Amino acid sequence: MTETIPAFIAIDWGSTNRRAYLVDQAGRVLRAEREGKGLLSVPDDGFAAEVAAIRSRLGDLPAVLAGMVGSARGWANVPYVRTPAGIDDLAAHVYWVEAGRTAIVPGLADPAGDVMRGEEVQFLGAVAAGLAPPDGLLCQPGTHCKWARMADGKIASFSTAMTGELFGLLRDHSLLADFLSGDVHDGEAFRAGAAAGLHGSLSTLLFRIRAAALLGSRSVEDSAAYASGVLIGHDVGGAQLEPGANVHVIADAHLGALYAAALAVAGANTTRLDSHDAFVAGIHRIWKASAA
Amino acid sequence: MTETIPAFIAIDWGSTNRRAYLVDQAGRVLRAEREGKGLLSVPDDGFAAEVAAIRSRLGDLPAVLAGMVGSARGWANVPYVRTPAGIDDLAAHVYWVEAGRTAIVPGLADPAGDVMRGEEVQFLGAVAAGLAPPDGLLCQPGTHCKWARMADGKIASFSTAMTGELFGLLRDHSLLADFLSGDVHDGEAFRAGAAAGLHGSLSTLLFRIRAAALLGSRSVEDSAAYASGVLIGHDVGGAQLEPGANVHVIADAHLGALYAAALAVAGANTTRLDSHDAFVAGIHRIWKASAA
Repeated sequence: MTETIPAFIAIDWGSTNRRAYLVDQAGRVLRAEREGKGLLSVPDDGFAAEVAAIRSRLGDLPAVLAGMVGSARGWANVPYVRTPAGIDDLAAHVYWVEAGRTAIVPGLADPAGDVMRGEEVQFLGAVAAGLAPPDGLLCQPGTHCKWARMADGKIASFSTAMTGELFGLLRDHSLLADFLSGDVHDGEAFRAGAAAGLHGSLSTLLFRIRAAALLGSRSVEDSAAYASGVLIGHDVGGAQLEPGANVHVIADAHLGALYAAALAVAGANTTRLDSHDAFVAGIHRIWKASAA
Repeated sequence: MTETIPAFIAIDWGSTNRRAYLVDQAGRVLRAEREGKGLLSVPDDGFAAEVAAIRSRLGDLPAVLAGMVGSARGWANVPYVRTPAGIDDLAAHVYWVEAGRTAIVPGLADPAGDVMRGEEVQFLGAVAAGLAPPDGLLCQPGTHCKWARMADGKIASFSTAMTGELFGLLRDHSLLADFLSGDVHDGEAFRAGAAAGLHGSLSTLLFRIRAAALLGSRSVEDSAAYASGVLIGHDVGGAQLEPGANVHVIADAHLGALYAAALAVAGANTTRLDSHDAFVAGIHRIWKASAA
């Protein structure tokens, strides 16, 4: 019986969170840890020490990093790779911060004027692992929701909507704030918002949330769900889906359910994927290809 | 020679600013004052004293108030009048906070789910004074930009876009903040933003402002003008103008020039009106009609 040998450490390092995985040669996760150690909490010269600490816990192994850690605010400002781009394109441009030992996966730039850092690993991993089709449309909701059009297993093009960030700005800082303290969940109010947001004018629909509360035509407790529906509907509307389209959504259960509901309102179907599975599948293949 | 007799005091009282006018019987402004005494700076029981102080400066005369002073946060929560509504409809529903002496003009509610307080006076005044046609489209830009469709001199319907507020949120609190410190003026960047915003997805276009700065395809100093163009273009796009439409814009020179530029990008023409003239013309007629 062959012993499973730990092969490398994969780190998904964003602005506010970090996940590290001990991954064996076959791509299986042996251990995982999640910490609030986003790069914004790490001093400029603190990245090597952070990775050393992770190695002290998970093993003295090569490490492959992805996400905003490869930006100007991170460990090194790694040049973007342009779309179309696949596993091999990323592998050919990994950036070695510690030669042969610690690499950062580059982000992607779409010539239409968009950028991503980190989500490319999930998108390519989802397809490479057979979780999503090689020519489908994938969506990764969040603060900045990413939509990727895949072609032949590569990311052909992508775009970003600042859906989650806009919701946070409205809830925390706007004149709507008093009306957005309610729970956000799929339901009548959310779907009414999504239907309006698909085609309507976003800035008009947002103002009318306050008007509806003042006029008593929508309860304040429903307003946050409606507002989320408007923003996610606007986001889905921007994707200009064909009727009956199937979208593979990489998200947790909560956001995944909201996007599935908005996509249903738009006449599209949803397949939900787990982001950790997709990330590990992607970074394992990038690591193998970069070592080849 | 007939002496001109001061007839009443007109007060345009918003959340953060207040303007008071001493207006004669013919509707001419004899004196005017502007103060930062928006209603948010006045305690709930302080409105009568504020008006008494204005009377001590402008004369012991009847006062007619309009704006957010008639909201739940103001002196009294005056019920909205529903559209369609004209001068006589507002005059019939002025709310007397001091019988025969101090009145508040009601705001308007559009059954489609929108509200305004204060702008209705300018819109109706602009038409009544012959500054705008009785069946035109009027626009009053600002924190919350108002669009009013006039019919036979009344406000037939209206809608609001939170254009100015969204720009402030993005500049002050968003991940775009670092890119939005530049000057906003009409020019190539503003018009490119307006053209994109007319039809594009707002939340995608906003994210790409940051991407363009990172990719070096737009200078950071042009980004604020571009962002303003996107938001105002989105606002204008929501108005669904017919080709060659003429829009009467009630605004100061700076905002008026920006809206005129975005309207030009949309193929529409602009006539700019002064908001003080429109306000005084409107409130003078409401006062005369309420006294009739």
